[in-house]
Amino acid sequence: MLRLMSLVRLFVTHPLGQGQPVPLTREQAHYLFGVMRLEPGAEVALFNGADGEWRAVVAETGKKGGLLNCMTQAVAQGEPPDLWLCFAPVKKARTDFIVEKAVELGVRRIQPVATEFTNSERFRQDRHQANAVEAAEQCGATFVPEVADLVRLDRLLADWPADRHLMFCDETRAGPATALSGAPEGPWAILIGPEGGFSAAERARLAGMALARPVSLGPRVLRADTAAVAAMTLWQAALGDWR
Amino acid sequence: MLRLMSLVRLFVTHPLGQGQPVPLTREQAHYLFGVMRLEPGAEVALFNGADGEWRAVVAETGKKGGLLNCMTQAVAQGEPPDLWLCFAPVKKARTDFIVEKAVELGVRRIQPVATEFTNSERFRQDRHQANAVEAAEQCGATFVPEVADLVRLDRLLADWPADRHLMFCDETRAGPATALSGAPEGPWAILIGPEGGFSAAERARLAGMALARPVSLGPRVLRADTAAVAAMTLWQAALGDWR
Repeated sequence: MLRLMSLVRLFVTHPLGQGQPVPLTREQAHYLFGVMRLEPGAEVALFNGADGEWRAVVAETGKKGGLLNCMTQAVAQGEPPDLWLCFAPVKKARTDFIVEKAVELGVRRIQPVATEFTNSERFRQDRHQANAVEAAEQCGATFVPEVADLVRLDRLLADWPADRHLMFCDETRAGPATALSGAPEGPWAILIGPEGGFSAAERARLAGMALARPVSLGPRVLRADTAAVAAMTLWQAALGDWR
Repeated sequence: MLRLMSLVRLFVTHPLGQGQPVPLTREQAHYLFGVMRLEPGAEVALFNGADGEWRAVVAETGKKGGLLNCMTQAVAQGEPPDLWLCFAPVKKARTDFIVEKAVELGVRRIQPVATEFTNSERFRQDRHQANAVEAAEQCGATFVPEVADLVRLDRLLADWPADRHLMFCDETRAGPATALSGAPEGPWAILIGPEGGFSAAERARLAGMALARPVSLGPRVLRADTAAVAAMTLWQAALGDWR
């Protein structure tokens, strides 16, 4: 797929608008001037998750900081459909991957979930939020999903919002993919279980939840990262903004 | 998703059948006895891409070889739908990933394609065939897709089989995902272009090909590896064995 532009694309936590000066942090200055070798007058694409994407021009360069001036808005602020991706974290590289794909495929929120058979109890929220920012920079998104802290499945379900439907991927139901056609519109979540599957108690809990529906992802066993992308794809095509 | 069994699962290039002795290569012996520490009497799952999956028992161990005896067939030979995944190779780790996902998601053949804007002219067929074998071992597949040698797009299209439909993912058509519903049954292929996109000449060539149809994968730019998984998912759900 097309790598958007040859412009450097940078996420900033700063308001953006016509003529708005944007000061750079030390880290950003290092990236723009030390790594990417930009000079005064160079054009940069900026976004902050709220004001769309702006074209800005380098006004001042430096080792510890710098300044950009916003010129014009290039892309209006977008917002992906109201979809949460909930998943049991796996090994670091594959969890990184799931976060990256969730940003590319367009979710509103990334929610790691600890289940009975989760094989990785640690989840570095800060690291993965930074991954999400970087993924957004690289795929041209104007929206950066929030990456939440790890929560236990029983807590997640106990606090579940009454208006959000849940699609859970259940490996014990390997078989024809349950169609999402006819499923209700509105806020949704996808839940990808751990590689050990859900426990009997967890499965019973989900089966008893009116808002939850099981979806099989075909007859072959999928890794968690494959399942996450497949589930998000099916949802986007059936209920999201791929229609 | 469930990691199938705690049994060691091994691909062998040897006939399998009731009572069939299966001699091991040095490499396989090292893996089973040196790494996995199996002893005589231990059970192993074997497949060869043609005879399904068999349970076998370790009869002899050794540093340079060994012997297994097949006992019973556990899984009948499966064959994924007649789908080819054609894609422009990308950086090594992501190409590895695409191959792995193609095996998990169920394709018949993996065909790397060099296009005008391909950013990686090398494709180690042997390495990626080995990756495919390993992916099949790990995801419980009984079928290992053939990984072909790199071919140029113009050659691929010039020799295109008259009975195979082609779904190509065209980043210039970012927008609603074109539905595959109503698309014909039969042999199919997916073509994922390079990150630089197809050239104008390539796009014209594909547009003029009666068997080819463009499919958009939503409004956001996707990396090649994301696009590959998304495209395979959409196809499997619409025309494959996920139905």
